[in-house]
Amino acid sequence: MIVAMQENATEEQIDAVISVMVESGVEVHRTTGEVQTILAAVGATAGLDLAKFGSLPGVLNVHRISSPYKLAGRGFRPEGTVVEFRNGVKIGGKQIAVMAGPCSIESRDQIFETAKRVKAAGGSFLRGGAFKPRSSPYSFQGMGIPGLELMRAAADAYDLLVVSEVMEISQIEPMLPHVDCFQVGARNMQNFNLLRELGQTRKPVLLKRGMAATLEELLLSAEYILSGGNYNVILCERGIRTFETATRNTMDISAIPVTKKLTHLPMVADPSHGTGRRDMVAPLAKASVAAGADAILIEVHPNADKAASDAAQTLFLDQFEKLMGEMKAIATAVGRSL
Amino acid sequence: MIVAMQENATEEQIDAVISVMVESGVEVHRTTGEVQTILAAVGATAGLDLAKFGSLPGVLNVHRISSPYKLAGRGFRPEGTVVEFRNGVKIGGKQIAVMAGPCSIESRDQIFETAKRVKAAGGSFLRGGAFKPRSSPYSFQGMGIPGLELMRAAADAYDLLVVSEVMEISQIEPMLPHVDCFQVGARNMQNFNLLRELGQTRKPVLLKRGMAATLEELLLSAEYILSGGNYNVILCERGIRTFETATRNTMDISAIPVTKKLTHLPMVADPSHGTGRRDMVAPLAKASVAAGADAILIEVHPNADKAASDAAQTLFLDQFEKLMGEMKAIATAVGRSL
Amino acid sequence: MIVAMQENATEEQIDAVISVMVESGVEVHRTTGEVQTILAAVGATAGLDLAKFGSLPGVLNVHRISSPYKLAGRGFRPEGTVVEFRNGVKIGGKQIAVMAGPCSIESRDQIFETAKRVKAAGGSFLRGGAFKPRSSPYSFQGMGIPGLELMRAAADAYDLLVVSEVMEISQIEPMLPHVDCFQVGARNMQNFNLLRELGQTRKPVLLKRGMAATLEELLLSAEYILSGGNYNVILCERGIRTFETATRNTMDISAIPVTKKLTHLPMVADPSHGTGRRDMVAPLAKASVAAGADAILIEVHPNADKAASDAAQTLFLDQFEKLMGEMKAIATAVGRSL
Amino acid sequence: MIVAMQENATEEQIDAVISVMVESGVEVHRTTGEVQTILAAVGATAGLDLAKFGSLPGVLNVHRISSPYKLAGRGFRPEGTVVEFRNGVKIGGKQIAVMAGPCSIESRDQIFETAKRVKAAGGSFLRGGAFKPRSSPYSFQGMGIPGLELMRAAADAYDLLVVSEVMEISQIEPMLPHVDCFQVGARNMQNFNLLRELGQTRKPVLLKRGMAATLEELLLSAEYILSGGNYNVILCERGIRTFETATRNTMDISAIPVTKKLTHLPMVADPSHGTGRRDMVAPLAKASVAAGADAILIEVHPNADKAASDAAQTLFLDQFEKLMGEMKAIATAVGRSL
Repeated sequence: MIVAMQENATEEQIDAVISVMVESGVEVHRTTGEVQTILAAVGATAGLDLAKFGSLPGVLNVHRISSPYKLAGRGFRPEGTVVEFRNGVKIGGKQIAVMAGPCSIESRDQIFETAKRVKAAGGSFLRGGAFKPRSSPYSFQGMGIPGLELMRAAADAYDLLVVSEVMEISQIEPMLPHVDCFQVGARNMQNFNLLRELGQTRKPVLLKRGMAATLEELLLSAEYILSGGNYNVILCERGIRTFETATRNTMDISAIPVTKKLTHLPMVADPSHGTGRRDMVAPLAKASVAAGADAILIEVHPNADKAASDAAQTLFLDQFEKLMGEMKAIATAVGRSL
Repeated sequence: MIVAMQENATEEQIDAVISVMVESGVEVHRTTGEVQTILAAVGATAGLDLAKFGSLPGVLNVHRISSPYKLAGRGFRPEGTVVEFRNGVKIGGKQIAVMAGPCSIESRDQIFETAKRVKAAGGSFLRGGAFKPRSSPYSFQGMGIPGLELMRAAADAYDLLVVSEVMEISQIEPMLPHVDCFQVGARNMQNFNLLRELGQTRKPVLLKRGMAATLEELLLSAEYILSGGNYNVILCERGIRTFETATRNTMDISAIPVTKKLTHLPMVADPSHGTGRRDMVAPLAKASVAAGADAILIEVHPNADKAASDAAQTLFLDQFEKLMGEMKAIATAVGRSL
Repeated sequence: MIVAMQENATEEQIDAVISVMVESGVEVHRTTGEVQTILAAVGATAGLDLAKFGSLPGVLNVHRISSPYKLAGRGFRPEGTVVEFRNGVKIGGKQIAVMAGPCSIESRDQIFETAKRVKAAGGSFLRGGAFKPRSSPYSFQGMGIPGLELMRAAADAYDLLVVSEVMEISQIEPMLPHVDCFQVGARNMQNFNLLRELGQTRKPVLLKRGMAATLEELLLSAEYILSGGNYNVILCERGIRTFETATRNTMDISAIPVTKKLTHLPMVADPSHGTGRRDMVAPLAKASVAAGADAILIEVHPNADKAASDAAQTLFLDQFEKLMGEMKAIATAVGRSL
Repeated sequence: MIVAMQENATEEQIDAVISVMVESGVEVHRTTGEVQTILAAVGATAGLDLAKFGSLPGVLNVHRISSPYKLAGRGFRPEGTVVEFRNGVKIGGKQIAVMAGPCSIESRDQIFETAKRVKAAGGSFLRGGAFKPRSSPYSFQGMGIPGLELMRAAADAYDLLVVSEVMEISQIEPMLPHVDCFQVGARNMQNFNLLRELGQTRKPVLLKRGMAATLEELLLSAEYILSGGNYNVILCERGIRTFETATRNTMDISAIPVTKKLTHLPMVADPSHGTGRRDMVAPLAKASVAAGADAILIEVHPNADKAASDAAQTLFLDQFEKLMGEMKAIATAVGRSL
């Protein structure tokens, strides 16, 4: 942390700032320039509340020099993290994984039909939501654990892995036997109690970026899970909220290569939520592969138009199969496989 | 809901859309124009997923005509809701209430000193956080229930009401004896399970707008609480995330008069989080009163510079006292009291 | 400017960065820490392109320490700028000025009726647009210079000053005899050639914030005018673009007190464009006065519903008169007059 | 346009709305439902100011049904526009074009060296700015017409086309002999007078999206040029402003496929401005090709670190050559060439 003092800051003000810095547990290096004094914090700066220093009398501005996360930083594991699942499937390596399935688990037929087609097309994960609290209290709210049991059976029948969203600490335990990867949704990205509990498990966690979260905040949330000892964290870009209304969200494709610089964790792209529009899923899925995504997460449904939730952004299974071929060609073009 | 078909939509496409509408439980009124066919949904449209219709073949665009919330709508209670507390204090009437206190409860001295001064200056609520999961896992995390007990004691000593944030369903029960009003933070605005549980209590709930939430989404979240039978909901504007970085958030003052049009629920302004800067709290607090806020929520601390959290946006107690006088003058100017 | 090097930066990389800094015309102070080297630029840093340094090998991040504008900075004129007009009206002093009039000048009757009522209610400026290129090429495009002549006559008849928008360098000369203050619209805030030319005049300029401009960018644009020797610059907040769609723009009321800290220039509020909704103009105008605005700019029209442009946000004259009384009461409450 | 009346709207209010609609030149179709009356405008709705109707008494909300642009709409030319240049190069066909060059023209050596390498790598356009008004009045401001003459000579020497930014009406005439394509920068996207004049030329125009412009606004700006009879308009995505600060702008890759649906005009991607970071240009360029861009616009410079402007986002020539190979592979994967 660098604290730049105002040109006319007094010695008393400078001393007061130094004293607050020291009380916060850091050492202070002072540089007295002709016009301005600059104070650099040295030591344990990760937990410092920068804004606190910005409001002290005589302070001009405050800058973070080192990143506020440690375990999530690229420097912690420069070679990159590869998350390996029990059947040998990996996320973060040369091969790009595909996770597909409906927004909500609705019925045995729906989930088995989906599993069969996802597997046949080359997917390795079955996704589907069991708990679906929605913006409106008057919408469909999900099948719960029985839904997860159906999805587990379908996945096992076709040798797929299961990824499903956990929304509360109390769901972790009952979900454990049914899922291979917990998904934390965008709305829970800063549910720190939930993250901390997931850090106590050793099950991989797919952590979605909040719709108004910066990439730094996403990595701070990952740090919560990592700091509990669970290193199997996978990040996911799923669109951010901007002024543009032509798509439900604005998918931030640059988040994929930017996170590769900042962190060692794998990065997944979700073009279904990223765009909110069925006709935009394929171009953005292809763009994600081209930009370096480690996996692609897509909503598919045998009868997409009538899906109980997220119908507008869900692909029909034949659209998904066609897209798989297109993504494979791009994966090859960027030196990977899918 | 209005579904506008494309100019070249076929009769088959139109019939298919009508059929999906009917299956969704609404009646359809069809208007066949010279260039375009328009389908209007009549009936129970509140739970409809509009995006679903936008992706059907032949559809040009879809518009919501009636609001997606019912109990929260102005029409449900045109005279406005006044939330009354056990000591007779009201929010939503002519008098503007003031809620003040530290971000985090830190010690007995801190909270008693704050309570004494808040009461003396004319405040009616003591605020303070007991559970403080923060963006960084390396920051202070709160005192928990013992903190709440201290705050309850301090509030009782000075005849103040207590408002404090609830972050999980499991905290509702233990918090009940200590608080007069639950606060739901911005990050939990769409934690629908929590909202649903709070709807089962009869304790007032102060619901903060999420930092990327539209006002419509805020009202849909309020609807979750109301639909459980708890009508004591108070909304709160606390700043939204925009591209501007001069303030931590951009306080959307227009949200105050806009919600007055849309809903009968009272609206509170939080200029501390709204700006994130101590020197901006007073002007924005005054602006909030001028714009029609029903209460003002402010972070204060006897030793603001050294507060364990949110120090940058916390007022010293003498700054708070000065601001109370200024807000009173503006309240009078707009025909209210404080 | 502070350049923080990566922990593992080599001496060659550090030397290369120092060399680019020196070539850019600044002196370099080097601090070699245990883990990290920090390079501080001293001297003429205002024109430095910070991003350029961020992309050099071995650089972790770059921070601006001193502000990129000089003449616009608070320190240049700590007592604040008061812009005085030929009839003695001032902007930036204790009295708050009111500027009112239609979006577009439409007819003699319209502008004279407006002028009479604006003056009677206590306004001191007549506003109105003569050149109206609009988003759609199929909308009304303005009366041009004949419109300005009408507005000048109306203003003179009622002892009002004239403020009107200039959109191109070629309009400056013909507008000069008709206006007392040039307005630069939000879309032209970064039309630097226009700003430079206006800097050559000695006529006051009201500079509106662009709808996606940071306050720092607004001040950099003001710097263009000031650096030509024209010190009569007045800033204006008129709403920024965010994700919220309930209002046309989100009026950033905090911009008023924030700019008071950053600059000596007066700050005007435009709640008409700030909200885009007639029913929101009054509450936001009052909030602006409470937050410290030096003048209020409002669209009014004798027949607001049928105005040729901006009808939705234009007040009827009797609404304006009522609002003037309310704003006066708030001005008094904050120790000013109107 | 659809105007939905409030449930309790009176017959007088409904008649008043109908009367304003008729005066605006449209026919009105009225649907009287059990709870609500809906008024549909039929006829010339393109120039209607929707907001105007939203503020009339008794109106609940207003929706646009048909698009506000005509010539730019996909329906006007369903087969798509291919812009052909004098040497046979096309934009909008199966082949993807590449435009590359420095931000600013700086010297004969710089621009000839760039031209040689761009041509050799397979580019077909040389780009470079002659007029460079910058955010700070203290930065480099461009070489002007002599710079354009240099660029023309370099382009001719290597059989390249020239694209360069026009910033004012007065520059059109002197630029005509030197450029093959005018570029309109993001800040001028709504400089409607400039657009109108460019509509009078028959020279292709590359129109960049404003950093806070919706895609609808981009198409309305294109409509200005088209309505003058100049059909050679090429759109360009170059990043929008959001809350994320890891990149200078957030490149909206979804804008590429979305505009393909809305308009017949070709779409170019500018990953240099889209990201503002040299290390992000390649992944976003590849993503743009995968998403369907018709051309890629890239800043390159023989000595990128020391470029007079935009250094941070400018590629070295060998980085550009490597990227060309990668983009070719992706173009093939999506069935196109480059």
